[in-house]
Amino acid sequence: MNIALRPAAAEDVPAIVAMLADDILGATRENPADLTPYRAAFDRLAADPSQHLLVAELDGRTVGCLQLTVLHGLSRQGRSRALIEAVRVDSALRGRGIGGTMIRLAVEEARRLGCALVQLTSDNTRKDAHRFYERLGFRATHTGFKREL
Amino acid sequence: MNIALRPAAAEDVPAIVAMLADDILGATRENPADLTPYRAAFDRLAADPSQHLLVAELDGRTVGCLQLTVLHGLSRQGRSRALIEAVRVDSALRGRGIGGTMIRLAVEEARRLGCALVQLTSDNTRKDAHRFYERLGFRATHTGFKREL
Repeated sequence: MNIALRPAAAEDVPAIVAMLADDILGATRENPADLTPYRAAFDRLAADPSQHLLVAELDGRTVGCLQLTVLHGLSRQGRSRALIEAVRVDSALRGRGIGGTMIRLAVEEARRLGCALVQLTSDNTRKDAHRFYERLGFRATHTGFKREL
Repeated sequence: MNIALRPAAAEDVPAIVAMLADDILGATRENPADLTPYRAAFDRLAADPSQHLLVAELDGRTVGCLQLTVLHGLSRQGRSRALIEAVRVDSALRGRGIGGTMIRLAVEEARRLGCALVQLTSDNTRKDAHRFYERLGFRATHTGFKREL
């Protein structure tokens, strides 16, 4: 399958927001009717050299997105790690292995960026996603906490 | 208790590494005998405006550390979030509420930096830490996955 990850451009914001909203959890959180806050967030992301918003293309069509952040830190003898967030695949194209290829490519990119570890969290309700990450070599060693401000 | 968080300086690296290593999991991962990789990691951190290595001081003495990273992103209507990593309190001073004060100050700092959410993960074996974060208003809604590269 000819999937490639590339950095998102400002023109990709509507497609990314549509994918974020087309999701059982995202449906209640997102508002594709007003792209203004998303465009502002894109500008903040684009200005940060450690944060990479990526889109997946299949034969030139945008079919997925994810975000890769390089986390520096002193722990583990100063090894940088990568954090993956906001993974989405176009709902019309799920079940074809696109997500798995995207994660494999993101892991390669993390390695290229000098990371020794990739980490991510998945909502406890996303049981299919948990099996998906375990098949891709991830281990569910941590508990993920959130607090709204 | 007169605890303050301040940005770590290069001179703090030995004390931070000592705290990272003085931990049931850190003991197997860290090597305080060779600070070279830690100093290189400190330089990478210091060069990144989104990543804040902080130390806690109690009456001028370094008693803890944590790392705060501001994550931009399109999800949740473009709201930035903060990630807390590598929380440690000097083992001689645990049980006095220093950690709780540190997290409360870090949450305030996250708010000041424009974040709408604070997230962190904790190793599944750290049951005391899980109760600690729940007391501080965090909810264990996610499963944290890691993959070594």
